Amino acid sequence: MKTITLAFAISMTLFSSISFANNDKPFALAIHGGAGTIKKSSFTPEQEQAYRAKLKEAVDAGYTVLEKGGSSLTAVTTAINVLEDSPYFNAGKGAVYTHNEEHEMDASIMDGNTMNAGAVAGVKHIKNPIDLARLVMDESVHVMLYGQGAEEFALTQGVPLVANETFNTQKRYEGLQRAKAKMAEAKSSADYQAAHQQLDTEYKVGTVGAVALDKQGNISAGTSTGGMTNKRYGRIGDAPVIGAGTYAENGVCAVSATGHGEYFIRYQVAGDICAKVKYQQKSIIQAADEVINQRLITAGGTGGVIAIDHRGNIATPFNTEGMYRATRKNGEEAQVMIWRDK
Amino acid sequence: MKTITLAFAISMTLFSSISFANNDKPFALAIHGGAGTIKKSSFTPEQEQAYRAKLKEAVDAGYTVLEKGGSSLTAVTTAINVLEDSPYFNAGKGAVYTHNEEHEMDASIMDGNTMNAGAVAGVKHIKNPIDLARLVMDESVHVMLYGQGAEEFALTQGVPLVANETFNTQKRYEGLQRAKAKMAEAKSSADYQAAHQQLDTEYKVGTVGAVALDKQGNISAGTSTGGMTNKRYGRIGDAPVIGAGTYAENGVCAVSATGHGEYFIRYQVAGDICAKVKYQQKSIIQAADEVINQRLITAGGTGGVIAIDHRGNIATPFNTEGMYRATRKNGEEAQVMIWRDK
Repeated sequence: MKTITLAFAISMTLFSSISFANNDKPFALAIHGGAGTIKKSSFTPEQEQAYRAKLKEAVDAGYTVLEKGGSSLTAVTTAINVLEDSPYFNAGKGAVYTHNEEHEMDASIMDGNTMNAGAVAGVKHIKNPIDLARLVMDESVHVMLYGQGAEEFALTQGVPLVANETFNTQKRYEGLQRAKAKMAEAKSSADYQAAHQQLDTEYKVGTVGAVALDKQGNISAGTSTGGMTNKRYGRIGDAPVIGAGTYAENGVCAVSATGHGEYFIRYQVAGDICAKVKYQQKSIIQAADEVINQRLITAGGTGGVIAIDHRGNIATPFNTEGMYRATRKNGEEAQVMIWRDK
Repeated sequence: MKTITLAFAISMTLFSSISFANNDKPFALAIHGGAGTIKKSSFTPEQEQAYRAKLKEAVDAGYTVLEKGGSSLTAVTTAINVLEDSPYFNAGKGAVYTHNEEHEMDASIMDGNTMNAGAVAGVKHIKNPIDLARLVMDESVHVMLYGQGAEEFALTQGVPLVANETFNTQKRYEGLQRAKAKMAEAKSSADYQAAHQQLDTEYKVGTVGAVALDKQGNISAGTSTGGMTNKRYGRIGDAPVIGAGTYAENGVCAVSATGHGEYFIRYQVAGDICAKVKYQQKSIIQAADEVINQRLITAGGTGGVIAIDHRGNIATPFNTEGMYRATRKNGEEAQVMIWRDK
């Protein structure tokens, strides 16, 4: 009896010391809902409030996972699910239209602990692409699956397919028509390129993502998008490209990007920020700022990132007018921002 | 008349000084035809000789471009075309079979001078995928195009489509049947993963690539592949992923990779080698060795890379039994190798 009591006492002591240690551990997350030309004048106060409320809902959902001791991976997918299920952001329900008036979505996720990763591109019938990216990571021997093949894999995993029209919204349809009208005016290849450049800021407020640090010290990143308005030719942007739109390595940093995807691929934005942290011992604040506000600006690439490190430091730089974003650290309230300082 | 003679003399002097300067400039290239379990015992002397002759033909074709003052980009595509047109290597003509008994090819190219890039994935009807990747880079606003969309783009560029059966070869078909038999024996998910791991070394001797430095000091990299034998679900490997299979940045390095693509994506192999050169001032020999022979081995990823820097230094590390490869520097003969030291 004594032995049992002692064992119980020891196990309780161990339990509370683990529990105490976990409570001491920093945890935090950041989310984004896209960067671009976000004009304050285009919102009514009610609309702005609705966007902020949805960002808060997403960051709080991820926070609750972390607070309960859940993994950074689950915090990332939980927060992204909220954004995918909202029509406000270009991912899931709010996905923009392709040239052919369909919706093609991309997503990726990376686990900084195992450095495993999963990505899907060009899927048309998946309600929450980030969850399928996680299944690719956890349940397949591959990292990146495309289109119909990715959906075949989804079926093997019991993920139901949904009609492409599930993602129809009036606002995005009007956006496509305006984009087509603008592109139709282009008479030469140079005009087309110029019109396309304009589109990128106007119609590509366009990715959602999350990065998180959990109590176990593991960091993760995930990104989900409806791609680029009026896109053609099975274009793949940076969101499903590991190292471009998403990257995570424990002890280094986790990054989710949003912006003009072609530049983010060429400059390996997520990977380059982590490389600066790892090989130059830069803080994530400095590393992310150098890539977004120096290198990308010189190159002409617009967008932003959210980044987190193993201490829970968070960076959210962007070189556009605004970036929908929210952060929350253990014991603190959520911070929700759209423009530079508010 | 005198003026004309003088002008002629001056222009000749300028011409020869430029020509002399260019002749002084280092230029070089390296190519690979895949890394994996390449058993010496599986070749007759004649077969080995034929492989070596094809590798020499490819590296010499790229060398001739560079010698004449052509760009590193053209040297890369010219060398890769020779390998794509040969049934010996898993790219173009020699592409392996997917699970559905088709051929799906991927390729990417990157220009270290402009840091522009182009990639195609999952194309079925393109004779030389590397040339289409270059058209994506030069003529589209995108970096990465998939499947049917990429082929639609090809048609807009006047690239003819060819029948998928163009890529049929008896040897690859038998490889698929053996792979299917092996996978069919797998009874559990763990068995399947184990069988798949075995396949990777046995059936994925599978990518071709080139890196080059031209007389103008520009470096480039390109990679082309038929993917993984028996692949399913629209799997995308590292070859079309900028930063994984291909990367180039002037003054830093140019890399083309070959190996178990999933690991090369997760560890951003091409980009990480360049990051070590750029941020840690490591030589490409050391940087490439650390990634291939330390980091990847720890992770369990098999394969190799070819890398070149702006001085014409070349690294060709691999952690497999062999890697088909050849190098040639200005004024030197081609070096052709398959195994560790020969």
